[in-house]
Amino acid sequence: MLKEDRRENMEKEREILEKLKKYREMDLKYVDGRILGSMCTKPHPISKKIVEMFLETNLGDPGLFPGTKNLEEEVIKMIGEMLHNKNPFGYIISGGTEANITAMRVVKKMSREKGRKEVNIFIPETAHFSFEKAREMMDLNYIVVPLDKKYTMDVKYIKDYIEDNVEKGIDGIVAIAGSTELGTIDNIPEISKVAKEHNIYIHVDAAFGGFVIPFLEDRYRLEGYNYHFDFSVDNVISITVDPHKMGLAPIPAGGIVFRDSSFKRYLDVETPYLTESYQATLIGTRSGIGVATTWGIMKLLGYEGYRKIVSQCMENTYYLVKRMKEYSFEKAIDPVLNIVAIRDEDPVGTSLILRKMGWYLSTCRCVDALRVVVMPHITKEHIDRFIETLAQCKKY
Amino acid sequence: MLKEDRRENMEKEREILEKLKKYREMDLKYVDGRILGSMCTKPHPISKKIVEMFLETNLGDPGLFPGTKNLEEEVIKMIGEMLHNKNPFGYIISGGTEANITAMRVVKKMSREKGRKEVNIFIPETAHFSFEKAREMMDLNYIVVPLDKKYTMDVKYIKDYIEDNVEKGIDGIVAIAGSTELGTIDNIPEISKVAKEHNIYIHVDAAFGGFVIPFLEDRYRLEGYNYHFDFSVDNVISITVDPHKMGLAPIPAGGIVFRDSSFKRYLDVETPYLTESYQATLIGTRSGIGVATTWGIMKLLGYEGYRKIVSQCMENTYYLVKRMKEYSFEKAIDPVLNIVAIRDEDPVGTSLILRKMGWYLSTCRCVDALRVVVMPHITKEHIDRFIETLAQCKKY
Repeated sequence: MLKEDRRENMEKEREILEKLKKYREMDLKYVDGRILGSMCTKPHPISKKIVEMFLETNLGDPGLFPGTKNLEEEVIKMIGEMLHNKNPFGYIISGGTEANITAMRVVKKMSREKGRKEVNIFIPETAHFSFEKAREMMDLNYIVVPLDKKYTMDVKYIKDYIEDNVEKGIDGIVAIAGSTELGTIDNIPEISKVAKEHNIYIHVDAAFGGFVIPFLEDRYRLEGYNYHFDFSVDNVISITVDPHKMGLAPIPAGGIVFRDSSFKRYLDVETPYLTESYQATLIGTRSGIGVATTWGIMKLLGYEGYRKIVSQCMENTYYLVKRMKEYSFEKAIDPVLNIVAIRDEDPVGTSLILRKMGWYLSTCRCVDALRVVVMPHITKEHIDRFIETLAQCKKY
Repeated sequence: MLKEDRRENMEKEREILEKLKKYREMDLKYVDGRILGSMCTKPHPISKKIVEMFLETNLGDPGLFPGTKNLEEEVIKMIGEMLHNKNPFGYIISGGTEANITAMRVVKKMSREKGRKEVNIFIPETAHFSFEKAREMMDLNYIVVPLDKKYTMDVKYIKDYIEDNVEKGIDGIVAIAGSTELGTIDNIPEISKVAKEHNIYIHVDAAFGGFVIPFLEDRYRLEGYNYHFDFSVDNVISITVDPHKMGLAPIPAGGIVFRDSSFKRYLDVETPYLTESYQATLIGTRSGIGVATTWGIMKLLGYEGYRKIVSQCMENTYYLVKRMKEYSFEKAIDPVLNIVAIRDEDPVGTSLILRKMGWYLSTCRCVDALRVVVMPHITKEHIDRFIETLAQCKKY
């Protein structure tokens, strides 16, 4: 390239970056504390350098990137340990949706191998909408389980349903550890008893809770509440756990972990052009940055680091509840994790008014409430400002 | 944080980055020219700064990131123009697999709305394995179309099949523009005639060819070969086109573009917790870096920039064919795009020997051949070294 061309090119590059910056300035920033309804947050600062280092890696073709593939195996091992599984099998993928779809692929395939025509799966009312995508694609037959007064799956309903429909084979149960709406945790040990008796696959969606519950100190645990959700519970076969939520990794870093590698065969698809012969992930070409950042952040923070982050989020959660009380705002439930549901007669209307005032939060469906996810980017100052805005908004 | 703690933390961070570097050194690098079988390449250098700028963005919740969402709309508009569609609708997603699955979701939904039980889709023998993932999940019924002597879909087979099976409703035809194995382009205008007559949806998988064919100069076009593949062809409803292949964007940046937004409704799923009410993408949480890098690279390179890159790849393709001839290696077909198939009696065996010698390429299935994708990271020097290695390897 001629010197002049190069200079011209650099000038053009600078202009484009300037323009992109302007677009970026139209976005909200996590640090401003106005994003109160997202389960994502500002990635850990170490991410930047790791992303740069692994930008060209592709785990869709792992033979070309054996170092990065090694990191993935170590990450899955680390996450497995966190979830009481010494022999885990899994991948760091695009996110919770891909993870949940992946689990549903296995359930469907197993059902087919048993010669069943219908794939029958219990799913809680509070299930994330990714399960709707899975249902629609795979023609799954969901049996929607109503919630009990704790807003968790009514296990008795499951038992009764099975008794009343003995001819109907049940292929799976989806349970949630850290529901999107309320942060509730289904009573997975109770569900496990039923699953064991009838030999049913349990998939746990811990996309959010997976990086919270293992680090949640006793003082933040509600009395009489069941926090067991992982592979220590029988019949839990797969868990969705997203590093790009409370794990502080940048997007895309979702996680799917299976009890062991025997489940790989249900996912394998032949891959004639790649360095491996079978591919188990839904997505093909797949950046290694999710793996590398998750590895780096988990190594850097360790148990203690995540414990501190979760504790800080819980402190801020309690602070929000306290401030709510001062203004006579009611919580819908005692916070189980770092999510607060604020009772409101017209949550959608209120959230739209708040949005106009620059505050972004969302609403619950299972109860009339606004929903605040107290992510690590939320500070006490943000909470103060928010609570005052909410009070102001409710005056109208 | 105390000063000492901070120092300790920085030290730990440095150590982790050092370790990650060691893993990364185990990977192959595109610039070394040993990766001859991948459709990915070293991302354009401008990517690094853009990735940094957009690292925290999430297009899964576009109301929070209106600037980045704007960029996506502009990118889809730009890609639409490239594909002769002034009114495109689509997304920058995780890659070709998600894009192809997305198109199949629409075909299935449309079929269901017509009350059909079976979803019947013509698909070429050379279709990418992502279609197998779609088939398995969605229970699609593929009618595999054999290849003609050009290694493209035998259109007569399609016509005959429809005539012989009038009672069978056909829902879709998948055609390829730049097949993974050989870079061939199905005769989409011919397919279009059949599709028009019977009102059939055409999905074009131009994951690879989408960023090649529009920039391919006449002098690289084979005589009598049909290069038309885009929305200028009737009944082409959706196209997969991946910026992270020949578009030089980093992973993940796949693309799905529809003829217009009327197809959105087949994909929409209700999203109670987000800033938009319906989500049409398969994946939920979705980084904005794919969008922002694609925008930046397309603006920087423009038509002229991509033309130069494609021309350089084609020159190197021809150079490889010329060097092959010197050693009496035969090409399986005249290269259509920047992919060369080298005839070999035992392509799998040869590729394994080459791999041991440090060269990574893959094999074709539809013909006994090794397969080299002449991506922008491949130089004439790499080709020289490769050809000598191949000659050496064939002596044994």
